[in-house]
Amino acid sequence: MRCEVLAVGTELLLGQIVDTNSAWIGEQLAASGIDSYEHRVVGDNQARIVAALRDLLSRADAVVVCGGLGPTQDDLTRDAIAEVMGVPLVRRMELAEYIAAMFRARLRDMPENNLRQADIPDGGEAIPNPLGTAPGLLCNVGEGKVVYAVPGVPYEMQEMICTHVLPDLLRRSGEAATIVSRSLKTWGTSESALAEMVAPRLEALDTTGNPTIAFLARGIEGLVVRITAKAATEQEARALVDIEEKELRAILGDLVFGVDNETMESAVLSRLRSRRWTLGVAESVTGGLIGARIVNVEGASEVFKGTIGAYTTDVKRAVLGVTAEPVVSVEAALEMAVGARRVLDADVGLSVTGVAGPTEQDGVAVGTVCFGIALADGSVDAVSARLPGDRERVRQFATISSLNLLRQRLDALGE
Amino acid sequence: MRCEVLAVGTELLLGQIVDTNSAWIGEQLAASGIDSYEHRVVGDNQARIVAALRDLLSRADAVVVCGGLGPTQDDLTRDAIAEVMGVPLVRRMELAEYIAAMFRARLRDMPENNLRQADIPDGGEAIPNPLGTAPGLLCNVGEGKVVYAVPGVPYEMQEMICTHVLPDLLRRSGEAATIVSRSLKTWGTSESALAEMVAPRLEALDTTGNPTIAFLARGIEGLVVRITAKAATEQEARALVDIEEKELRAILGDLVFGVDNETMESAVLSRLRSRRWTLGVAESVTGGLIGARIVNVEGASEVFKGTIGAYTTDVKRAVLGVTAEPVVSVEAALEMAVGARRVLDADVGLSVTGVAGPTEQDGVAVGTVCFGIALADGSVDAVSARLPGDRERVRQFATISSLNLLRQRLDALGE
Repeated sequence: MRCEVLAVGTELLLGQIVDTNSAWIGEQLAASGIDSYEHRVVGDNQARIVAALRDLLSRADAVVVCGGLGPTQDDLTRDAIAEVMGVPLVRRMELAEYIAAMFRARLRDMPENNLRQADIPDGGEAIPNPLGTAPGLLCNVGEGKVVYAVPGVPYEMQEMICTHVLPDLLRRSGEAATIVSRSLKTWGTSESALAEMVAPRLEALDTTGNPTIAFLARGIEGLVVRITAKAATEQEARALVDIEEKELRAILGDLVFGVDNETMESAVLSRLRSRRWTLGVAESVTGGLIGARIVNVEGASEVFKGTIGAYTTDVKRAVLGVTAEPVVSVEAALEMAVGARRVLDADVGLSVTGVAGPTEQDGVAVGTVCFGIALADGSVDAVSARLPGDRERVRQFATISSLNLLRQRLDALGE
Repeated sequence: MRCEVLAVGTELLLGQIVDTNSAWIGEQLAASGIDSYEHRVVGDNQARIVAALRDLLSRADAVVVCGGLGPTQDDLTRDAIAEVMGVPLVRRMELAEYIAAMFRARLRDMPENNLRQADIPDGGEAIPNPLGTAPGLLCNVGEGKVVYAVPGVPYEMQEMICTHVLPDLLRRSGEAATIVSRSLKTWGTSESALAEMVAPRLEALDTTGNPTIAFLARGIEGLVVRITAKAATEQEARALVDIEEKELRAILGDLVFGVDNETMESAVLSRLRSRRWTLGVAESVTGGLIGARIVNVEGASEVFKGTIGAYTTDVKRAVLGVTAEPVVSVEAALEMAVGARRVLDADVGLSVTGVAGPTEQDGVAVGTVCFGIALADGSVDAVSARLPGDRERVRQFATISSLNLLRQRLDALGE
């Protein structure tokens, strides 16, 4: 099974928007075992969309077209697919009614143009869009080949790919009808080390080929181990995933910080919330980045009291009461964590101090970062690390490292 | 003149990396008046690179190939271009020596493989790479058409596009030999308003067509007005840009915060540095993001003392001495700015307090953000704004808005 990706939009060619959709779709296809040999971007021009579709379909079994489903005259994906199929567009009244209802629900008048989104190439099917007005398309184009059209809005596109496009592709490739995926999010090891740990499971699964395991690199956010199971029903697929998750967690232990959409900061906050503990942060080298990540989580204010971005030495001394010398040291990190607890009146104090570069500071090498944790029972911990990369990377790495250390510390406390 | 972009790399198809290079190149081509109708991504497969090149060259005058110039057996761009040209690869000893010298300078042994980077399709030219080992390629492929190859590493690619590829394309299109561009970075107005302000200049330039003006949207970072001039020599081109910059600055006034690579935070820090003033920040809704942006600037520690991320009301009261009610109000913002100056012992205090959502707080609507500035002379200012977008967008917008307000306040002080 081979499926190519065609992104449509003059704004992509002009570089006004970076096409992140094609990479996302490519990753989903790969994780589902579907080959993809080419991604293409063309502008809002019917002749070029048609030519690209014909060329891609001459070699592939399927094409996902992304974008060009909006309501304006520039949105030509529907027209182009109809031309490739050699059929007219027909207006589907049930879709028109759905679109009109969405406008009514938002108390807005519907421009007449929006009814164009109810037009479907004759013989094609609409893919429902629960998150927007533009339905997607599923169109058989002869010789057993298929064109899918999805909106360019990432979350609308992603929903349609997961719930309609991938299942349909797997069905066509002779696979079972339902797939269920779960992502175990890990932090703190390399891809090769992770692959080695998981190797016995890969071997064990090799005989059945179901579920499958894929690794997805997320840069500074760690590595995702994705379990994908296929079965006749969702319940059966989910049961297969559950079993494999248990096996993998036994191997991966506390490398796993969360599942699916959980982030490192949400993992930390949920652990603190369940203990009804508040958090105060003191950060130097990261300049406020730890606080900025934490407040990404909705409801952070129940747990997070604030952060003291103590960038200069005199602020560390005056505000946080640091006495240690140099101020990048485990001793200083301990004092900062204790200071954060006290100044911010929090149950838990977390601290980071380090040297991001470009030059060393007080004889401490670039990339040296020290982390401190102070708990309500008076216990304190601190560690020192040497982080790789440039100024920006050291800071990003220090931020997620600090959150991961706190997560592991909290998990080690037990019930 | 029509130039397409071909990105090479299996990791792009698999979604392990998002292709940002094609958008960047597309933007440069558009700004130079060169058409681009198609971007394509193929994997590390010689037959597919060759097929894509032949197909693109059948319609376009030029193709920029991005990636696949590394030292490993997977790097096939050189081989594919040679195949399209119908010539062998020849090793250029001067390139081999340059690559060996780069390794020696870094005190590293050179793997034998790296000499592959000295191979050039017979009859092609190397494009120098001052930033890495892989030279680029400029290869005439018959019928007056040309293929450029540049590395996938963004900064190496960008350097080659600006200094070699664009000038060569312009020369081929019958344009003058040297182009000089300058970006005026603006913040605080819409694209349509900016276009209206600049319209008289666009009209005035329309007769000569040199220099040209282009608008580039940078999302939350504002809008760039780019001046591009062509001339026989760099000096003449630069003189044309200088004159136009003056004209535009007279129209745009303090909307312009910087030039080329300057950021809002570097613009603020350079203004503070020239007055030898230090900065302390107090931020609530942004959770530390203002501090995190400021420390992006190298040498920030000379100016930036730190930030108090006072997320909860009790921290605002206890640490910053806020008494105002509610804590999202211009009064609270004033007290926070004064508090930041005092607690962080800084010359200038900057503060932000607001409601990012998803729900209102103390009767204050989502998107309401108040900013405060306190100066060493005792003067204080505060304003309130209503920012659009979701939680994350409100925070990002509040961060850059606060920095822009401080920039304008400092500029208004005069000498």
